[in-house]
Amino acid sequence: MDNVLAYLKQHEADHVSMIQDLCRFPTISTLSDHSQHLHDAAKWLHSTLEGIGLKTQTLPTPGYPVVFAEYEAGPDKPTYLVYGHYDVQPTGDLKLWDADPFDPVINNDWLICRGSADDKGQALIYLQAVAAWLKTDGKLPINLKIMIEGEEEIGSPNLTDFVKQHRDLLKCDGILISDTGMLADGFPTLTYGTRGLLYKEVLLTGPVHDLHSGSFGGTIPNPANELARLIARMHDTDGRVTLPGFYDRVQPLGDDERADFAALPFDEAQYLKDLNVAAPAGEAGYTTLERRSVRPTLDVNGIVGGFIGEGANTIIPSKASAKISMRLVPDQTADELSDIFDRWIADNLHPGVRHEILNHGTADAYVTPRSWSALGAAKTSLREAFDHDVALIREGGSLPILPMFKEVLGADSLMLGFAGPHCNAHGPNEKLGLKDLHRGTNAVARLFAKLADA
Amino acid sequence: MDNVLAYLKQHEADHVSMIQDLCRFPTISTLSDHSQHLHDAAKWLHSTLEGIGLKTQTLPTPGYPVVFAEYEAGPDKPTYLVYGHYDVQPTGDLKLWDADPFDPVINNDWLICRGSADDKGQALIYLQAVAAWLKTDGKLPINLKIMIEGEEEIGSPNLTDFVKQHRDLLKCDGILISDTGMLADGFPTLTYGTRGLLYKEVLLTGPVHDLHSGSFGGTIPNPANELARLIARMHDTDGRVTLPGFYDRVQPLGDDERADFAALPFDEAQYLKDLNVAAPAGEAGYTTLERRSVRPTLDVNGIVGGFIGEGANTIIPSKASAKISMRLVPDQTADELSDIFDRWIADNLHPGVRHEILNHGTADAYVTPRSWSALGAAKTSLREAFDHDVALIREGGSLPILPMFKEVLGADSLMLGFAGPHCNAHGPNEKLGLKDLHRGTNAVARLFAKLADA
Repeated sequence: MDNVLAYLKQHEADHVSMIQDLCRFPTISTLSDHSQHLHDAAKWLHSTLEGIGLKTQTLPTPGYPVVFAEYEAGPDKPTYLVYGHYDVQPTGDLKLWDADPFDPVINNDWLICRGSADDKGQALIYLQAVAAWLKTDGKLPINLKIMIEGEEEIGSPNLTDFVKQHRDLLKCDGILISDTGMLADGFPTLTYGTRGLLYKEVLLTGPVHDLHSGSFGGTIPNPANELARLIARMHDTDGRVTLPGFYDRVQPLGDDERADFAALPFDEAQYLKDLNVAAPAGEAGYTTLERRSVRPTLDVNGIVGGFIGEGANTIIPSKASAKISMRLVPDQTADELSDIFDRWIADNLHPGVRHEILNHGTADAYVTPRSWSALGAAKTSLREAFDHDVALIREGGSLPILPMFKEVLGADSLMLGFAGPHCNAHGPNEKLGLKDLHRGTNAVARLFAKLADA
Repeated sequence: MDNVLAYLKQHEADHVSMIQDLCRFPTISTLSDHSQHLHDAAKWLHSTLEGIGLKTQTLPTPGYPVVFAEYEAGPDKPTYLVYGHYDVQPTGDLKLWDADPFDPVINNDWLICRGSADDKGQALIYLQAVAAWLKTDGKLPINLKIMIEGEEEIGSPNLTDFVKQHRDLLKCDGILISDTGMLADGFPTLTYGTRGLLYKEVLLTGPVHDLHSGSFGGTIPNPANELARLIARMHDTDGRVTLPGFYDRVQPLGDDERADFAALPFDEAQYLKDLNVAAPAGEAGYTTLERRSVRPTLDVNGIVGGFIGEGANTIIPSKASAKISMRLVPDQTADELSDIFDRWIADNLHPGVRHEILNHGTADAYVTPRSWSALGAAKTSLREAFDHDVALIREGGSLPILPMFKEVLGADSLMLGFAGPHCNAHGPNEKLGLKDLHRGTNAVARLFAKLADA
């Protein structure tokens, strides 16, 4: 183990250089004219994985290929699957960047370029940790599989089918992902849950066309008022969602989990100040950190109806619609709540208003079992590598691949995030802290050993 | 009187021809490049009024001039002021017209052109009735003043100042207006009230910019949800407006008035079918006809916030806004309710949401006193001329000039409408029924006589 860590220390510059090489491919998956760059990056990954000494394949999908590599330590060892992605977000306005997003710059211990944090830099941590083990110890302490896809930033449209199709190849005891963030620079963070998502659009139609509010106001239902009434009724005065059965399957929050949340460094006053919001809101009885990650929510994402130009137009709108999404937590399921939502709208709608409901996507929530020994191994590895307490957090957003891995492969996921809170993933001047990168690689190298005994 | 009516009968064609002449001027007041046409129409009116034998002046305003004419019958006679307007609405899409909107066509007893109903055709009824009296009897039975303005379709921006400035010139015992409609073709209709208007826009701001609903949902107030909550709370379950004091000044509806409403021909099922609405809505305890004209209402005219494009975007909007207008009835005042509305919003808003309120216009309600003898005279004149029962209705829309006339001149208004329900004022193929035009002229000629004794 000491040899492995010493190798990593000696080869930090090589590691950064490897990341820079991959980041030079402008692998923007949402832009079809970048297609060749994605295929080139997959080829680079293939040869790099092979160069480290792994059995490597490039597996096709209807979209961009998955690069897959594996190392066999023996049937008596546990098997872990690393997931990462080689595609990136578009650059956005180039004027907001200090340099070319695809010409990686090192400045003041930051690696600055598109993909440095999300996810090329974080994915290559595993390659470097594998290389260190193989160069020094000649072997890995666990069976390892590495799967790096090229369509994460467009919602992984082919991944579920791919995983189902390659169920045996991908068989594993657990999944390792580094595609999340850290609570603060130098503060190792283990994300052990994501919320689910149910995204609806409710379209109401009242009169056959917009009507004069003087001649018709007060006689027929106004779909904009009706929509407001429905939305308002979706919460009670305690900020709880009123859809029947909404909380029935929600796992109660354990005392240990609440204690962990309470121990996290979080300055609510600063949080609100940064958002320019004078007072928080949400479900009574839970802290802001709890509300934003482990409690389910319902929010209007967009609403429109009637005259929205400048000035005045005295109409009763014919139509009004709202996009309404819910963040779900275990064991709520998007499918069940979708039915509950649709039925509630139909039951509570004014009989003079017609309606339609569109579905814009679902994802189930996911939580890594807190009792899983691999989680303990990860926590210890992080504490040792960073010489710092580890934050255990649950993420408020959604990652549909996690419940998918659980369902198809029967495997839980560990999320070790090494991107600091200022990494600006998806934004201009995306960056990865080199200190966190090296401590993260150290932690992953330690983790391989600990997982062998976990 | 018989001579007068006989004259009218003999000169029906001349009357139509006179209206066609005025309608040929494309007097679209909202289009500045039509300016010369409005001045030309004012000149035509001046010389036509003079030609009839009236003392005529063209009085300037900061916008288009008012053409004013008067006839003095003597200090022992009452004085009435006719109001009309020579400007018209834009044509809209010319493809929707069967012919040139400014080349009047007669087809199947309809006069079809822009301005035929609103308001050139109706305004010239008074000129023809005056001509008939003067040509046959040599005099009018009352003092008459005629004021025809050129800015009604842009909201009469200069009329209040004009009336104040010419208070003595315009002094009168009552005002005669034909710029409204009929309940059905051939069904004489006296409109004796209009609702007031208070038009607000409420703009809410939550977080400093749109936020990720996963990372922030459930922690801070969502301005779109808050806006819905405010709007929903503006009505109770009986459809009554909840703003404090909203109904305090509302005049109770008299039994006689309710009886008149109940007697009007109104097919609610057909009304709803035409609007494609399965069930009515509104304030409990009042009929649909009552709700749409004599009860105050509150409606959302437009609402917008957050992501309104196609598909899904998981944001907490930074901003949401709604245009909300109220139709008022006597003795509610727009100024008082404006304060009530603003205070209620401030008092009921979540402390984490900032707000701004824009004012997009106010108008007070107006009702002609049902006991006014002139109203009785008008009713009798209409019944005689049309040989049909007269409908007394109150209009749901707003006409700010009526409370202004009452306030500045101390005079009440009579609204005798001769445009049928299919006249399509403001729309394509605007038209006036020639039978209703001639019966209307007959009624106005009779009215002059009856007002002398009212």
